[in-house]
Amino acid sequence: MNAAIAQTGRVRAAVLCDWGGSRLRAFLDVAGRVTAQASGPGIARLGGQSPATVLQQTLAPWSAEADIEVVVLCGMAGSRTGLAEVPYLRAPADADTCWAAARAVRDGEWSVSILPGIQARNFRDAADVMRGEETQIFGALQLQAALAQGRRMLVLPGTHSKWVEVRDGRIARLQTYLTGELFDLLSTQSSLLRLGGAAGADEDAFEIGVRNAARHDLAASLFETRSAQLVEDRSAGWARAFLSGLLIGAEVRSMLETPNVPGGELTLIGDPQLTRRYQRALRLFDVPGQSLDGDVCVLAGLRAAAHHFRKES
Amino acid sequence: MNAAIAQTGRVRAAVLCDWGGSRLRAFLDVAGRVTAQASGPGIARLGGQSPATVLQQTLAPWSAEADIEVVVLCGMAGSRTGLAEVPYLRAPADADTCWAAARAVRDGEWSVSILPGIQARNFRDAADVMRGEETQIFGALQLQAALAQGRRMLVLPGTHSKWVEVRDGRIARLQTYLTGELFDLLSTQSSLLRLGGAAGADEDAFEIGVRNAARHDLAASLFETRSAQLVEDRSAGWARAFLSGLLIGAEVRSMLETPNVPGGELTLIGDPQLTRRYQRALRLFDVPGQSLDGDVCVLAGLRAAAHHFRKES
Repeated sequence: MNAAIAQTGRVRAAVLCDWGGSRLRAFLDVAGRVTAQASGPGIARLGGQSPATVLQQTLAPWSAEADIEVVVLCGMAGSRTGLAEVPYLRAPADADTCWAAARAVRDGEWSVSILPGIQARNFRDAADVMRGEETQIFGALQLQAALAQGRRMLVLPGTHSKWVEVRDGRIARLQTYLTGELFDLLSTQSSLLRLGGAAGADEDAFEIGVRNAARHDLAASLFETRSAQLVEDRSAGWARAFLSGLLIGAEVRSMLETPNVPGGELTLIGDPQLTRRYQRALRLFDVPGQSLDGDVCVLAGLRAAAHHFRKES
Repeated sequence: MNAAIAQTGRVRAAVLCDWGGSRLRAFLDVAGRVTAQASGPGIARLGGQSPATVLQQTLAPWSAEADIEVVVLCGMAGSRTGLAEVPYLRAPADADTCWAAARAVRDGEWSVSILPGIQARNFRDAADVMRGEETQIFGALQLQAALAQGRRMLVLPGTHSKWVEVRDGRIARLQTYLTGELFDLLSTQSSLLRLGGAAGADEDAFEIGVRNAARHDLAASLFETRSAQLVEDRSAGWARAFLSGLLIGAEVRSMLETPNVPGGELTLIGDPQLTRRYQRALRLFDVPGQSLDGDVCVLAGLRAAAHHFRKES
């Protein structure tokens, strides 16, 4: 008889949730395999509903088919506006410390564990924070044991791109770049791309943007996105790719110029399309990098956390 | 009898208009004095009306009381979406070249002259453009003859901040920074200031932002606006002033680090509240600066242009 089938005849399962600002993604996990998925609104997009209601509605269909032993949440679920606030855990912190700092709440029939974010110094000794990325990182360390040895740099590109130093399996320092959010704002709301030219991708323009960022500071270069269209007949598609290259290039250059950042191969964790873009930028700076799928990593991290909470109970 | 009174008994006047993206400002000028003012929507805010209609409606009340000999427009009025497109004039260009490149159009009873913008190389040899600022600059040169001698740096802060090198009275090079637009986007639309803390100004925070920009690159520092609120209990007012300091500081540092920019005293031209803010930032970089009122400068420039067109006709 399958070990995952309880005496009731129903399967024993964990629910693993990555609940960020823009999206809730929930996975029904049975004996280490995802058997169902669901999604819901992010913490910043609840539209007046309470987080508890959204969670109930999203997970309710699974109650009928499985014994849900544990529900694990990471990300903005633990922020002030989330299901319940979990204070940031101070770096340095490894996976076990992170799971131990989770906040347990009862939500109806379920025992819900909300993972903390992590607060660390950045590479300029200012405060920095993450919520959710720590779970991807601890997942990556599960998948590649070598990442937990020595000093490693992990990069998690996205709305808020995180560069994280891991020392012997502990998150030690982190630096956030606003790259994804800046690109969204500048490409949809600013005067830089409001000229109405032809759209379409232009991969040369991305590289031109990265090379520009390698030579000049970001503030000085942004307006070239507009003037290239006004007086050099560049298309809106060209300008969009150029802007993407400028912003990603400025991020990469900024970290490479920062003192005391560990060298060697970078590990990119995220959406494969986005990590490919970062890999292209890194190649122009002659920096080696490997990529891991962010979804795979966050599942591995949530699964490790669920394993911890099951042992506890 | 006053020379401005024509034989009809009505005064002879010029209409001087600064028509930018966000606002039309019109001045009725009689013998070098403004006797009435009017305003209307900017070229980017016409709400479906034609520029010609807006101009007619704004100026119509003055037709009854004055003989309008000339109407001079500067700014976005000459852009693709303006009253009539006037191609950018290529730098180097002095005031007379600029007036000579104006486009004359008839608009009902009036002879309207639209001034061109200027296209130049920036200090990194990329294309850059201005529309409207050239008129303020040529006005400043009318007001302070010394500015037309040798190599001078003029700074016109605003939505798109312009740093302009004037050589012997000619606009030679220019560099645009997106500072004002970035501040508007980041302070109203981004995650940096959406945490809902206390508002209010904090002048210390502005200086902290400028000093931060002097040490670190802009990309690396922006997120500190958010993390300072999340983990260091800074108010939204603090964060807003910090962000303003970061952006203005990044602009100033960028130009000071650019090779071949003329040294010496900078001349700031703009809204007095804004030029004061830039003066504070410049002091932290030990750079001397004087300020001129942007409204006074643009009027002086438009008046000089009107004088040129009257002589012509």
